[in-house]
Amino acid sequence: MKAEIITIGDELLNGQVVDTNSAWIAKHLGALHIPVFHITSISDKANAIKAALQQAEARADVIIMTGGLGPTRDDITKATVADYFGTTLVRNDTVLAHVESIFRRKAGKLMPTMNIGQADVLANAAVLFNDVGTAPGMAVERGGKYFAFLPGVPFEMKFLMENRVLPMLRDTYKSDVFVYNSYILTVGIGESHLAEQIADIEDALPPFITLAYLPRIGMVRLRFTGEGSDIEALTSITNSFKQQVVERVKDYVVSVDNRSFEEVLVQTCTSAGVTLSTAESCTGGAISAQITAVPGASQMFQGAAVVYSNQAKMDVLRVSPDTLAHYGAVSEQTVKEMAEGAKRVFGTDYAIATSGIAGPGGGTETKPVGTVCIAVAGKSETRTQTFYFKNDRAINIERTVVAGLTMLWNMFRKEE
Amino acid sequence: MKAEIITIGDELLNGQVVDTNSAWIAKHLGALHIPVFHITSISDKANAIKAALQQAEARADVIIMTGGLGPTRDDITKATVADYFGTTLVRNDTVLAHVESIFRRKAGKLMPTMNIGQADVLANAAVLFNDVGTAPGMAVERGGKYFAFLPGVPFEMKFLMENRVLPMLRDTYKSDVFVYNSYILTVGIGESHLAEQIADIEDALPPFITLAYLPRIGMVRLRFTGEGSDIEALTSITNSFKQQVVERVKDYVVSVDNRSFEEVLVQTCTSAGVTLSTAESCTGGAISAQITAVPGASQMFQGAAVVYSNQAKMDVLRVSPDTLAHYGAVSEQTVKEMAEGAKRVFGTDYAIATSGIAGPGGGTETKPVGTVCIAVAGKSETRTQTFYFKNDRAINIERTVVAGLTMLWNMFRKEE
Repeated sequence: MKAEIITIGDELLNGQVVDTNSAWIAKHLGALHIPVFHITSISDKANAIKAALQQAEARADVIIMTGGLGPTRDDITKATVADYFGTTLVRNDTVLAHVESIFRRKAGKLMPTMNIGQADVLANAAVLFNDVGTAPGMAVERGGKYFAFLPGVPFEMKFLMENRVLPMLRDTYKSDVFVYNSYILTVGIGESHLAEQIADIEDALPPFITLAYLPRIGMVRLRFTGEGSDIEALTSITNSFKQQVVERVKDYVVSVDNRSFEEVLVQTCTSAGVTLSTAESCTGGAISAQITAVPGASQMFQGAAVVYSNQAKMDVLRVSPDTLAHYGAVSEQTVKEMAEGAKRVFGTDYAIATSGIAGPGGGTETKPVGTVCIAVAGKSETRTQTFYFKNDRAINIERTVVAGLTMLWNMFRKEE
Repeated sequence: MKAEIITIGDELLNGQVVDTNSAWIAKHLGALHIPVFHITSISDKANAIKAALQQAEARADVIIMTGGLGPTRDDITKATVADYFGTTLVRNDTVLAHVESIFRRKAGKLMPTMNIGQADVLANAAVLFNDVGTAPGMAVERGGKYFAFLPGVPFEMKFLMENRVLPMLRDTYKSDVFVYNSYILTVGIGESHLAEQIADIEDALPPFITLAYLPRIGMVRLRFTGEGSDIEALTSITNSFKQQVVERVKDYVVSVDNRSFEEVLVQTCTSAGVTLSTAESCTGGAISAQITAVPGASQMFQGAAVVYSNQAKMDVLRVSPDTLAHYGAVSEQTVKEMAEGAKRVFGTDYAIATSGIAGPGGGTETKPVGTVCIAVAGKSETRTQTFYFKNDRAINIERTVVAGLTMLWNMFRKEE
């Protein structure tokens, strides 16, 4: 049982848009034990669409195609696919009524005539009714293979996958080979040092279990993948190897599941009943935004002060003018006062503070671009550290976020 | 002159990681008039790698492959590619010395023996020396086609593309067909209404110019693409059509180039000499983080107060307890006081405030999940608006960010 994803759109090929749909679809098919083994992005051209469909039909059992179903002229997927299947397009009245109702809901807006065509569907397809948008999805079965054609707008695609495609696949296409994935998230240790520490465990893995290293900025996720027909035995053997790794490198382990670092922090703080705030200069609210993107963050997260100017550092967080004058805004002394100020202003148990030179401008000889000071104030002490990241603005900010969260994690493990 | 990108990694196929490398590479090749027409993601398996190389070599002139060059066992790209080209791997002493020096720099850390293999390169390749990491890139030319093999870690890939691959392609592979892209960014009008307003201009486009609609949350980017051999004529004709569109929908146009909405706001405010702050509840710092991700934002952006709790709204921004008690945290009255509080605390000309129920929890009958109030305080007035977004947490936050920035943009256009 194999799946393949084809995403259509010139904007994917010229770099205008990052294809996030494929990863989302792959993750959800994987949960049904339907592994994706090929992802292709192609242009809005009929011959490219037909060639990709032909190759996918030869290789895969489930083919998910997204994009090109909109109302404008560059949307040619429907006509091309009809041609591929040797079928025609027919107008669907239910879809037409739905598209009209969407425009009616926005008072005073009549439906542009070009949207009538959105109600045309492949004559050989089951319509995947789209509650949240104007482009219907379509499903076709041919020769035991399942094709789904979905709009490229992410939230419409997700709605149709969750409510139409996945339930159907869950019921009909059952795989006899199970794929079991299990994860460990580590922070504060590099990929090759980690690999060295667990080399003997990796050596002992049976051929049906593979171990992958997924390094990201400041963290490494390990993924064990087992394949086999007996799901229970597979799960138990894979987890026994995983447990050995967890014990070996426990100082660096943040989670033993597929949660993000932020999710772990939010859930751990919430369970422990402790609260957090941040005082951010060079990260500009990015730590706060990452924490608050986690559902339920409002219980443990009280607030953030993004204090870009020296005036704001003094006014909002009561950083001393002497400290700023003497040591500068990017100094361990300043971030210490920022963290302690945030703890006080927001009344929290913990606080993270950042100040640095993210770049590209603002560097000096003694404090080059990438110089970042971070403080974490805990219940009994405040720790500070200076980092020298040497990247562009976006990476320097991201490294600062992860370093700040790692310092918080270490402080939290010591104190709780 | 056509390019193809192949990204390798099981993590891309199981949805663990979104492939952001391809869009970046495609954008930079496009700038050299080398259009990408195919992007493929495949697994860390030798037969998948070889099959993808074979297809790409048959179709494209430039093939960029990323991933699988790390030190751990799941990294099999080098050995597989050597096999594909019928060549061997040879140890490169300069690379070995570099890899050792990277480990030496981190005091007290010896190089794990597995990293020695990172100095092995294809015997038929030019080494693309990697200043910022341990995995060298490699370039191979065969039959007039150019192959580059790069690490998958984004900042290493970017370093090698910018410093090794792109300069080489710029000098050697000149295309005789130019592709000229030109952009318009609109906010506050939907894709099909926009298309309807400019239908006659689109009708008049010559066959060598195409118009694409790239809708994103709250905005639509239009892309004109002209292809031809006379770059000057192409540019001038494409821009004349673009100018007609800009004039037709000028109330919605934010930029006539490829900048992001945030970049336009930062640069416009900076030129006008005005300053901005934010007071964020449901967006949790996401507006501030997006603004401050733009280089140079520190001139116009003073700070943000992320006030998740009612206490913080009162303490930091002086929102009145009566307002909170009477109207609730999610109300136009509260966001008005938040925005005016931020203007005062940070001493800015403008401020954006948000408060809402991002979900999944926290909804009530009168204020369901997705209810968001936004205020923008300007020089002479404060405007407020209530929105009913009906999505998941991430989308509700993103919609709020764009709606807030759009309200700021409209206020700014009125006042400046």
